[in-house]
Amino acid sequence: MGDARKFFHHSEPFAMRRGGVLPGFTLAWESWGTLSPARDNVVLIFTGLSPDAHAASSEADPAPGWWEFMVGPDKPIDTNRWYVICVNSLGSCKGSTGPASINPDTGELYKTGFPELAIEDIAASADLLIQSLGIDQIAVLVGPSMGGMTALAYSLLLPEKSRHFVSLSSAVAASPFAIAIRSLQREFVMADREYRDGDYHDWDGPGTGMRLARKLGMISYRSAEEWRGRFGRDRIPAERISDKPFAMEFEVQSYLDAAAERFIGGFDPNCYLYLSRSMDWFDGAEHGFQPGGHIPKFESARILGVCSDILFPCYQQQEIADILETAGIPVSFEELGSIQGHDAFLVDKDGFGPNIREYLDAL
Amino acid sequence: MGDARKFFHHSEPFAMRRGGVLPGFTLAWESWGTLSPARDNVVLIFTGLSPDAHAASSEADPAPGWWEFMVGPDKPIDTNRWYVICVNSLGSCKGSTGPASINPDTGELYKTGFPELAIEDIAASADLLIQSLGIDQIAVLVGPSMGGMTALAYSLLLPEKSRHFVSLSSAVAASPFAIAIRSLQREFVMADREYRDGDYHDWDGPGTGMRLARKLGMISYRSAEEWRGRFGRDRIPAERISDKPFAMEFEVQSYLDAAAERFIGGFDPNCYLYLSRSMDWFDGAEHGFQPGGHIPKFESARILGVCSDILFPCYQQQEIADILETAGIPVSFEELGSIQGHDAFLVDKDGFGPNIREYLDAL
Repeated sequence: MGDARKFFHHSEPFAMRRGGVLPGFTLAWESWGTLSPARDNVVLIFTGLSPDAHAASSEADPAPGWWEFMVGPDKPIDTNRWYVICVNSLGSCKGSTGPASINPDTGELYKTGFPELAIEDIAASADLLIQSLGIDQIAVLVGPSMGGMTALAYSLLLPEKSRHFVSLSSAVAASPFAIAIRSLQREFVMADREYRDGDYHDWDGPGTGMRLARKLGMISYRSAEEWRGRFGRDRIPAERISDKPFAMEFEVQSYLDAAAERFIGGFDPNCYLYLSRSMDWFDGAEHGFQPGGHIPKFESARILGVCSDILFPCYQQQEIADILETAGIPVSFEELGSIQGHDAFLVDKDGFGPNIREYLDAL
Repeated sequence: MGDARKFFHHSEPFAMRRGGVLPGFTLAWESWGTLSPARDNVVLIFTGLSPDAHAASSEADPAPGWWEFMVGPDKPIDTNRWYVICVNSLGSCKGSTGPASINPDTGELYKTGFPELAIEDIAASADLLIQSLGIDQIAVLVGPSMGGMTALAYSLLLPEKSRHFVSLSSAVAASPFAIAIRSLQREFVMADREYRDGDYHDWDGPGTGMRLARKLGMISYRSAEEWRGRFGRDRIPAERISDKPFAMEFEVQSYLDAAAERFIGGFDPNCYLYLSRSMDWFDGAEHGFQPGGHIPKFESARILGVCSDILFPCYQQQEIADILETAGIPVSFEELGSIQGHDAFLVDKDGFGPNIREYLDAL
């Protein structure tokens, strides 16, 4: 497997929103397509909490990306036309600087010594990459989930930089229900003795806490309706049932276990805690993003939400659309009937693909 | 504070549904009102997972009960008319025999040596109490949540014993979403090192696991809509924010913490695991409870559900009503607009009270 990642190194001090300063940072990023001579065909994608910059396959890295159905030649975000950039968030552990990186001032891992991370820091750091590429304008800013919050933060910090905006299953600010779920996930990790107040030796340290956090994540990412049809009350085969007390018996439990297994070991627990908390903190209203307030100067916007999403429910998509509309921005808001909940943007190819294609083709 | 509990001791072996045998058992129960000479005014209430038999205050125990607004003189379940019995479930730790009780065969606590507990065992054991009181017929069988499953099990085991049926926020069988949540709660408890495979020394042992389980419980018992109005993004006062990393900051986190604090220490972890699992296992279809199948001979039924309930969603209430209707039973099914989710039956006095009153008054 190749690696199509590029690394942007910023070697100046970087002041963060909540008061910390990084002596410098690195961002991992990937790109697809060709930058036009006028540099006016840039699609900038911010990601959800866990994905890396590998949104789609390419010659350099043929492994399928996390948004394989969306990005590529002749795909909805058509790389024959667009120069697509996807950035691994500051604070993540997929090549960008974060709590799992070495602090150059000490030669040790940052761990919980990493400064408090805000969604705005993810946006501002990514813009330094964009500037380094000589790109003055983003044609289309795209963000699903946490990436939608980051895209909103980016455009609130730089209100004239992006021409068009695609927000998917995101929010102006987290709901108390989402805060409850995410803060409980963080508690699981911290309650694991192997977390050792963030000073664990390897990522697998608080594996139990991460596993439990991911299972709750899956409960919040998918939907009861999907599982009803997919698993019902199906049992796992008797020979796979452990003889331990209270062992797994239902297929839905086995599904959660497999999802958790795939996640742990692939994600640094401190990075997870930092990114998770940044979503709870983010609030567009702190920038004046409210009716009649400080609104980015988009030429158009498409806002997509999913009825079965309990983490970023549809009323939150409506709220984004309503605020943009008060500033006279042509907004198309659509509520998709996908049954996969918050994760639908990752898996409901037929729901999201044609919708994004239609929007981008008309630009 | 007095104690209005009575204790029913059954001293014969009790064969349980999944194969175990108890050498005998005790059930704690309370009653309100007066048994009519014809013994035809009995309302039997089964409870949710955690409540005890103290549904309402009385002279002997003036402390408010868990269903204080519902049970009492001139209340919706009017004790001037009805002789109301509430039973603490077999397997619980509120006076009835369960994993936290002493096994008379060994002189030690049962702990995980308690036989596997099914909802049907809770129902069948309660019927031995009813028989001991010389009661041949239940006028109205009432069950909210797990108590609704128990009431359904009771009437499937004894299809001619109950004349009327009130089911609140219950289900014919748990959905995979509910199984996912409950099995994750059980994992939290078992992942706590202090659980020691069930051999902890006192109930506070796996306190962290129980706390986390209760927090997830609250997330599943209430609703996003309620919290949106109740907490929004309110912060707790700065002086109450700990200086630990990732400390609580939002009121919704503090609310969950307080709810968890009230729960732990009051409930035995093994009992919790046994009762929780019994809900995942229960499936009315195993008794033929399906259209055209084995249907209790109720004279009437009222089925209540709450739109905002994510744990026992409204389609599950509709399912109970539909199955009863296929047998020609007059069923009134109502979907209440309460915003408190699954817990609404405990707190939405104005939603549930008049509804139950109207149904019972017409009998």
